[in-house]
Amino acid sequence: LLQDQLEDVHPADYAAAISEFSLEHLWMLLAALRRAEQAEVFGYLPAEVQVALAIKISRRKLAPIIRQMSSDERADLFNRLTDEQREMLLPALAQAEREDLLLLSSHQEGTAGAIMTSDYAILAPDINVRDALDVLRREAPDKETIYSAYVVDEQRKLIGVVSLRELILAPATMLVDELMNHDPIYATVDMAQEQVAAMVARYDLLALPILNAQQQMVGIVTYDDAMDVAAEEATEDFHKTATIGKLDGNVKDASIGLLYRKRVFWLVVLVFGNIFSGAGIAYFEQTIASYLALLFFLPLLIASSGNAGAQSGTLMVRALATGDVKLRDWGSLLAKECLVAGLLGATMAFAVVWLGWWRGGYDIAIVVAATMMLVVMVGSLVGLSLPFLLSRLKLDPATASGPLITSIADVAGVVLYFSIATWYLGL
Amino acid sequence: LLQDQLEDVHPADYAAAISEFSLEHLWMLLAALRRAEQAEVFGYLPAEVQVALAIKISRRKLAPIIRQMSSDERADLFNRLTDEQREMLLPALAQAEREDLLLLSSHQEGTAGAIMTSDYAILAPDINVRDALDVLRREAPDKETIYSAYVVDEQRKLIGVVSLRELILAPATMLVDELMNHDPIYATVDMAQEQVAAMVARYDLLALPILNAQQQMVGIVTYDDAMDVAAEEATEDFHKTATIGKLDGNVKDASIGLLYRKRVFWLVVLVFGNIFSGAGIAYFEQTIASYLALLFFLPLLIASSGNAGAQSGTLMVRALATGDVKLRDWGSLLAKECLVAGLLGATMAFAVVWLGWWRGGYDIAIVVAATMMLVVMVGSLVGLSLPFLLSRLKLDPATASGPLITSIADVAGVVLYFSIATWYLGL
Ligand SMILES: [Mg+2]
Ligand SMILES: [Mg+2]
Ligand SMILES: [Mg+2]
Ligand SMILES: [Mg+2]
Ligand SMILES: [Mg+2]
Ligand SMILES: [Mg+2]
Ligand SMILES: [Mg+2]
Ligand SMILES: [Mg+2]
Ligand SMILES: [Mg+2]
Ligand SMILES: [Mg+2]
Ligand SMILES: [Mg+2]
Ligand SMILES: [Mg+2]
Ligand SMILES: [Mg+2]
Repeated sequence: LLQDQLEDVHPADYAAAISEFSLEHLWMLLAALRRAEQAEVFGYLPAEVQVALAIKISRRKLAPIIRQMSSDERADLFNRLTDEQREMLLPALAQAEREDLLLLSSHQEGTAGAIMTSDYAILAPDINVRDALDVLRREAPDKETIYSAYVVDEQRKLIGVVSLRELILAPATMLVDELMNHDPIYATVDMAQEQVAAMVARYDLLALPILNAQQQMVGIVTYDDAMDVAAEEATEDFHKTATIGKLDGNVKDASIGLLYRKRVFWLVVLVFGNIFSGAGIAYFEQTIASYLALLFFLPLLIASSGNAGAQSGTLMVRALATGDVKLRDWGSLLAKECLVAGLLGATMAFAVVWLGWWRGGYDIAIVVAATMMLVVMVGSLVGLSLPFLLSRLKLDPATASGPLITSIADVAGVVLYFSIATWYLGL
Repeated sequence: LLQDQLEDVHPADYAAAISEFSLEHLWMLLAALRRAEQAEVFGYLPAEVQVALAIKISRRKLAPIIRQMSSDERADLFNRLTDEQREMLLPALAQAEREDLLLLSSHQEGTAGAIMTSDYAILAPDINVRDALDVLRREAPDKETIYSAYVVDEQRKLIGVVSLRELILAPATMLVDELMNHDPIYATVDMAQEQVAAMVARYDLLALPILNAQQQMVGIVTYDDAMDVAAEEATEDFHKTATIGKLDGNVKDASIGLLYRKRVFWLVVLVFGNIFSGAGIAYFEQTIASYLALLFFLPLLIASSGNAGAQSGTLMVRALATGDVKLRDWGSLLAKECLVAGLLGATMAFAVVWLGWWRGGYDIAIVVAATMMLVVMVGSLVGLSLPFLLSRLKLDPATASGPLITSIADVAGVVLYFSIATWYLGL
């Protein structure tokens, strides 16, 4: 039988392989599996393919799979359907499943509620270890994990957590209440998914319990989904740093229109930022006209300022995202950056002073070196500070920080360079 | 007793709290815990603090903790000690532990071998489920996880994997060989840690078995360490993209000398890259001298080209890192990018044509708009292609790609702008 031979293929690989086929063939290859495996493979299919199948395949055939899906993946699929498609799907589910689905899919994207699953194992505190193991054995087929079990009271308030490892090592007659950790780590439904992923990583959790506003347990976020969220948030920060808006899914499959929309906004905004650099140049037109050789060094000076700023800015954006650095660290980091940037500026000044001397003689060499020293410091300090400022203004520190920093560095570079030149060269 | 009251505090929180104290007080607070918890908390202490304790505390007191540490964390600590300190530590360990430690710490940093632990549970294929559960129960205290058990033959070759969930659901007399997955997913000791973390995420594994060159099982990489590796690799890519060298640990604790060294190299290299832009300007000095108003638009045009390039470059660097995009996708992505960049260029040209008209009249408006269109396209196509080129040259696509792209965009911007101006304005 096909299903026996394919038993040991990982569902992620099976899903990746069959998603290369047309929808009909894909469906045939999916339907050839056992029911439980069908649902697992379906969950690994790309979101677009899931939606396409949900639309194309008759409700009668698809409903059993959707019933078997893990509740978080089912809610994600549901959120991608149109109202009409949802109306088609809901009657295929039992009353309890329907309510669960509507509740899970009601949470705002990007929160703990939107990534949690409701398939977790609960225990009562007053049963003993033997009974607890029986409960877990009985419920295992329907639960995403039984390695962590959550102990709740009659109001479904979370009062403890116990691991399967602890249970199988404990004496059979010990009470769950005696064995459990009474101070479980938890998060709330409206916590940002980024924070949730960070908690899972910090505490090395298999699953993080999620509570509602009444402190009742409503779901868990599992480590595998936390890993995906961490990767997704890092991608978002990479994109934001380069002024690209939030892009869901693979860039390879993104449409031209989508890519255009996600990129055009900041490109145009930054044009207006760069007018200031142009205005700076226009202001110093006299100086430039009488000393055109100065222009040779302009790209080099403003690029160096921007590069140094991009370095310190990137260090801060990432450290703020990982929690390595907090808002209150700005002062001490700025003090250190003054010294680092001073050393970098001095090195860069040394690197260009010869170039200045060779192209323009002694005076130009002095102007170029002094400017380099200054603009590397200005770029670095702006780069370091801007992410903190954005954070303080409750904006994402990653937002556009790269190009914003270089735009500011450009303006500062133009103004400082020509000011120093005008003054030193007595123009 | 203090240790009873602190029982439910997570070791990560306990470690974070006590690491605020001086070494002596820290040691007192650590020594107050139970042995097993001491080792757990010790493992969560920052690497510098672990090393400081290992040096400061007498071997007799520290040895029991180090013996209890998980083998991967112990190997990390060992790798941070000097040869002399290692010689002090080794005699405190039993023969088997010593060999294990020397083997684990011998793997090159950044490989699967360097992040794996040797505390995994193995089973023989020919025992039944009841006996397998007994084995796991007996070995649980010393193993990092018993939720995945690895089935090996007499040569320690990996022949299967079985989960504790499957074991507790299976009939007691069933053989492990009948129950296990015969086609386990595995990696090899020398695989890059980045790839290992990607496999753990792709297959949602609790732990990934690691084989040596003889296909023998030598360790597992657990999901929590895979999460840390994924975060570390993302940080490295962020830093590389902004021309910062690999920085271990928190930037807050990095010394001035270290930060200087990690930043200075590419800053200086890029100065020489930017000389080309200067040379471009010098070449067109005639044009500039007779039409100084052109300079107003120079920063804006080269910055826009660089920004568009940073966008497409960042999209590719991240997609190549996550595996969303492969080297072979370059052609189709380039074709799509031509269209996206064309639309972006047209929009940007429209944004600046009015500015050109206002500042310099009809001719300047045409020159500026045409240049904008072109440089946004050139920047975008260079930005998209450079990460692929770096990859093809077996270099990390993240390396310096941001500033390299903007440097190239600067040169292209200068040359295209003044070429078009010279030609169109008939200078
Ligand atoms: Mg969701
Ligand atoms: Mg962790
Ligand atoms: Mg899930
Ligand atoms: Mg998943
Ligand atoms: Mg986010
Ligand atoms: Mg974020
Ligand atoms: Mg620039
Ligand atoms: Mg290691
Ligand atoms: Mg996954
Ligand atoms: Mg570990
Ligand atoms: Mg760890
Ligand atoms: Mg790496
Ligand atoms: Mg990498």
